[in-house]
Parts: sequence; C-alpha cells; structure tokens
Amino acid sequence: MYKEMDINKAFLALESGPVILIGSRFKGKDNLMTISWQMPNEFSGTIAITTGDWNYSFKGIMENKACTIMVPDSSMIETVVKIGAVSGRDCDKFQMFNLKKESGKIVSSPIIEGCLCAFECEVLDYIEKYSILILKVVRALCDESLGDKRVYHAVGDGRFTLDGETINLRSLMEDKLPLGV
Amino acid sequence: MYKEMDINKAFLALESGPVILIGSRFKGKDNLMTISWQMPNEFSGTIAITTGDWNYSFKGIMENKACTIMVPDSSMIETVVKIGAVSGRDCDKFQMFNLKKESGKIVSSPIIEGCLCAFECEVLDYIEKYSILILKVVRALCDESLGDKRVYHAVGDGRFTLDGETINLRSLMEDKLPLGV
Repeated sequence: MYKEMDINKAFLALESGPVILIGSRFKGKDNLMTISWQMPNEFSGTIAITTGDWNYSFKGIMENKACTIMVPDSSMIETVVKIGAVSGRDCDKFQMFNLKKESGKIVSSPIIEGCLCAFECEVLDYIEKYSILILKVVRALCDESLGDKRVYHAVGDGRFTLDGETINLRSLMEDKLPLGV
Repeated sequence: MYKEMDINKAFLALESGPVILIGSRFKGKDNLMTISWQMPNEFSGTIAITTGDWNYSFKGIMENKACTIMVPDSSMIETVVKIGAVSGRDCDKFQMFNLKKESGKIVSSPIIEGCLCAFECEVLDYIEKYSILILKVVRALCDESLGDKRVYHAVGDGRFTLDGETINLRSLMEDKLPLGV
C-alpha cells in the first residue's frame, strides 16, 4: 500500500542507481519501460534520465510531458527485465505481466502496485543533443509494508547485482547531508 | 596493476550506479572528489555527472576540460567517504589518505592506484542550467588482479549498500545488449 512521502527524500530511492520502471501514456494507451541510466540531479526531486526516440515510451513521455518512476524490489527482477525486453508498440505490458495499475493523481501516467516507491513526474526539459530528460517529482509515494527492501543494479551485460550488506558511514559525512535527511 | 580496456565497455563499470572518484587538477594541484550522481549516456563511453561550482574539483575540471574517473572497490569505502567529506581547497587529499597516483597519459588529471577501473575523460560539454557535465572516456584502464570486485552504492543518507548476489538474466535480454558486450 503506497503512502505519501516527502518529495525532498525521493532522491534517496534513486541515488544508489537501481533499475527503475518508467510509466507513460501514448495516445491513451499506458506503457512501461525499464531504465538504468538515471541519476538524481537536485535534492529537491529533480532527476535526469538518458532516453530518446529509440524507446517507444519516449513518445508518450513527450506527448504528455509526464511520466511515473517506480523502484521495484528484488522480488520483481525477472519481470522487470522482461518488461525491458519487449516493446509497448507490440503488446500491453500490464496485461502480459499481470501488473495492477492505477493512474497518477497529478499526471496521467500509470503507477503499478508492489514497488518500493512510485513518483509522479513532470518533464522539465529535454536536452536533445545528449538525450537527457530532466524530470521533476511532483508526488512521491512509498510502500513501507514490503518485506524485501533490496533493490538491484544492472551491470549492463545481462547481469544484475542485488544489494547485499548495508554499511552506515553517516558519522563520516554528516555535514554533507541535506537538512532533514 | 592497470591494463588497457575497451572504451566501449567503460559503461559496464558505471551502469550499476557505484560511488566513484573524480580526479582533477587545478592550478597545477591535483584533487579528488567522491561522486554518486552519475550515469552512462552512450554505449561508446559518454558519461553524465551532476556537478558544479559547489564542488571545488569543478574548477579544475573546467580549467583543463578534463578529469579522471575511478571506480573503487569495497575495501576503500571508508577512505572514499572521507575523501568526499573534506575539500581540496584546504588539504592535499592524496597525502592525507596516503594515495599513490600518477598523471593520465592523455589528460593531466591524476589516476590513483588500487581501483577496479580508471578512465581518462575529456569534457564534451557542460549544461549549466542543470549542472550536468558530459564526459567522453578517451582511455580506459581496468585492474583485474583485485580480489574483491564488489562496488558499493550510496543511499544518500550516509548509508552505503555493498553488492551482494549477482543474477545473470542475459538470456532474457540478449538482443538489447550492444555488440561485443
């Protein structure tokens, strides 16, 4: 069950570089893609993603100047990879992978159930020369009831690394952290 | 011991979103910073990083239009966090943390020993509005002799996650991988 979370903490779900899902809608049809080339761009919920024409989802993102970002946990890893291997041009990924979805409250893009976090985003800008999409989180949701909170990271060659041990080094960098984090 | 590696495989060291070190030189003095907001931008060795004036290293990167990227393994985690907590304006981080370095062959920025990978990079562009630096890897090095090949990821609140289990899902996405990877 998703609950509202502070937009200023959204970067905490992305900074580690997990594989994420991007929800979009093109000509009234919802779509979903898997992305790994993403980074926070500001502590206040600005995110940069490398994407462009080669992703069918890009059409929907630009049509509505909006998308959703979901951070799936490790239980979904095979589904997430399969989502990335087919195109929404040819199929309905929600039906194909049996994903429950609802529309965002602020943007029309779909939010799927069962992820660690879901962010509704507006497109701030697209830097065409470098295929960089700048997104602003306008609503942030978090599901704290999920048991396995591990995310995973794409190596880029078909391998994925699951989060292992967590080390807390906060005492070494306390004054580098933004207020409230 | 670093050996040359294919520039077109450099993204494999960064796609998982590890914490990285950036080497630079400002007015003849080498510097080093810790960065986590980075993403591959092209398979051919283009990388995007969020950085700007607030990082002292930024001056050196822009002065020489160059820097190095190093991917440290998990044995260096405390040192890497400490490197990020002090400024090269006030100290010599190489002396302070007992780091052996040499200059790049193509760029003058320092390469430190003992990391999994080291990339010499030229600045392609700086997108000031979003503080995004676009880098092109011009020489890639890899140390295959290191025992612990695990990288780690910043959560953003002082916690770091070490790579755990690796899952190979290549068979599910074979045709999405670039040639030769």
